[in-house]
Amino acid sequence: MDQRQLPHQVLWLHTADYRATARAIRDMVVRGAPAIAAAAAYGLAQGIRAFRGRDLGKFGAHVRRVHRALLAARPTAVDPARAMEEVLAAIRAGHTVEERKALALAAAEEFAHRSAAECRALGEQGLRLIRTGMSVLTHCNAGRLACVDYGTATAPLYLAHERGRRFHVYCTETRPRSQGAALTAWELARAGIAHTLIADTAVGLLMQQGRVDLVLVGSDRVLGRTGHVTNKIGTYNLAVLAHRHGIPFYVAIPLSTLDWDLKSPSQIPIEERDPAEVRCARGVPLTPAARATVCEPVTVRVANPTSPVWNPAFDITPPELVTGVLTPAGIFKPNELWSQRRRLGFDRMIRAAGPHQATQRSPVSG
Amino acid sequence: MDQRQLPHQVLWLHTADYRATARAIRDMVVRGAPAIAAAAAYGLAQGIRAFRGRDLGKFGAHVRRVHRALLAARPTAVDPARAMEEVLAAIRAGHTVEERKALALAAAEEFAHRSAAECRALGEQGLRLIRTGMSVLTHCNAGRLACVDYGTATAPLYLAHERGRRFHVYCTETRPRSQGAALTAWELARAGIAHTLIADTAVGLLMQQGRVDLVLVGSDRVLGRTGHVTNKIGTYNLAVLAHRHGIPFYVAIPLSTLDWDLKSPSQIPIEERDPAEVRCARGVPLTPAARATVCEPVTVRVANPTSPVWNPAFDITPPELVTGVLTPAGIFKPNELWSQRRRLGFDRMIRAAGPHQATQRSPVSG
Repeated sequence: MDQRQLPHQVLWLHTADYRATARAIRDMVVRGAPAIAAAAAYGLAQGIRAFRGRDLGKFGAHVRRVHRALLAARPTAVDPARAMEEVLAAIRAGHTVEERKALALAAAEEFAHRSAAECRALGEQGLRLIRTGMSVLTHCNAGRLACVDYGTATAPLYLAHERGRRFHVYCTETRPRSQGAALTAWELARAGIAHTLIADTAVGLLMQQGRVDLVLVGSDRVLGRTGHVTNKIGTYNLAVLAHRHGIPFYVAIPLSTLDWDLKSPSQIPIEERDPAEVRCARGVPLTPAARATVCEPVTVRVANPTSPVWNPAFDITPPELVTGVLTPAGIFKPNELWSQRRRLGFDRMIRAAGPHQATQRSPVSG
Repeated sequence: MDQRQLPHQVLWLHTADYRATARAIRDMVVRGAPAIAAAAAYGLAQGIRAFRGRDLGKFGAHVRRVHRALLAARPTAVDPARAMEEVLAAIRAGHTVEERKALALAAAEEFAHRSAAECRALGEQGLRLIRTGMSVLTHCNAGRLACVDYGTATAPLYLAHERGRRFHVYCTETRPRSQGAALTAWELARAGIAHTLIADTAVGLLMQQGRVDLVLVGSDRVLGRTGHVTNKIGTYNLAVLAHRHGIPFYVAIPLSTLDWDLKSPSQIPIEERDPAEVRCARGVPLTPAARATVCEPVTVRVANPTSPVWNPAFDITPPELVTGVLTPAGIFKPNELWSQRRRLGFDRMIRAAGPHQATQRSPVSG
């Protein structure tokens, strides 16, 4: 589903080769950490499948080329890198090019299925946070569209809604790409969940008026060693404001979003994107004729064209502003992640057992 | 100058009668507290001038009707109300309808001239805040376009630039109406002041990276009794973030923005505007043909159309987050305003002496 066309129209895009898949990731046809991880895993399998010949040496060089192209598509996110590492590890068991091609596809499919199961488990763990009558603020899109299914930050919302709890969701627009206005609002409307869209500037007043009980966001990378959270630009603003108002701030992630390698937030690359994203906005023209029917979205330039722009895609929220990290294996305080690392991330037994069994085995902290 | 057309084209709009002037204020053809105050004063004089007849009783009823229509155009701002009170007070000295018409126009012109002089004096007072090499963050448009001349928050910037100081300005986009991207960036570019446009979401990261030395914003209403600051939605977010990062936060206002009546911020009306502002964005379409030439701005819908919207136009920043209130009569701590009220607001001697003399007579605190 081409997410750049939402909420205006539902269009499907098929990628002809791994370069097209990398472009789709870079251009945000597909976006959201778990979704681009699955897309990268499938893109790697797709690229590997396209190799012609039987020479394992040439095959290896080809795999590295495909891997590099897909890595470069979204350099800040850790999930695509992790997903592709799984595919690369899986193909080592193959003795021939053909065997390795088959193993690559199987590994990508396993990744996607586990990812969907993880989101569901994440929702089960987060259910206790959502009570009838409360108001939840979310940012960007950490929903179904960002994942293989269920979403991360939205998973507890969808499950709570299914179980009859009635609550209200505020979604921020999330400039410059307006994922909250275009995607989260669209998802919530389709699911029949009561919600209200606000400009990013209105968050402070909303909290000041006592209208937010919980902030729940996704993440592109959580440092397992320090508890720092990388997420869509603007998340740090929400965390600082929530802290001032004593509002709990939770980050919902699949296990693949945990980064156990980086030792300091200064090592996190902050992707800077095209200035045109800030200068412009994208939507369907509101002419009297167009009002009744959906038409092709266009890009309009809002800003003064001669002004330079700084357009960082992510920011970093320090652990002292994060109440809890919601994972399929339970809720953890950000500074507990490292001591609990066996229950998280690299505990292969939990992964192999599947998230449902894993959550039963892991009493929840935080 | 029709500010809704900026930065795309410079168009002038003439209002045929006071109702058209009220519409221009409501629809933000003219915006910014000092500019709408002058527009309201002239609009009142315009409406008064249109009265036909000599009956002072009927004339009084007509004046009240004009006054009400102009008051209703932007209910949150105190400046238009204050400016029109001056016009109403001035006409009482007239004994005939004709005398009162002439007095109304003279009072409106006096208001506009004093407003321009005040902005210049405000700039002189704020000069000490601007040093070569520093970075200043501003929000919305408190610039020339918002005033009769010089601007409020921008006045110290323009004066410092004229005196050869070299500094950098970050302007926030200021959704939903994007005044920072469309107006402040345009003004600064025309003045040759180095600046960078950012999305509202990028403020936190910018401060976290140590790239802001000073926040300088305007205001639509500062409570003289409590020091609370009403300004464009998003100002409170900046104040909370600046506080966390130990960055000075200044509010620049002409004296007419001081409200000595309200006793509590809960009495400030928060204007809620059309949901379409948040759902949509306005700009010129970027088609290959349009790229080279400016064309008519259009409105595009960015958001999911079925989602409800909350669109408050202003927020309230409490005095503990405000380092100083910059006025033509000096810089004051927000909790000092009340004790210094003789030097501010209603001190008629300072006003009558004109801002330049006034600032010489008033040693500066804060």
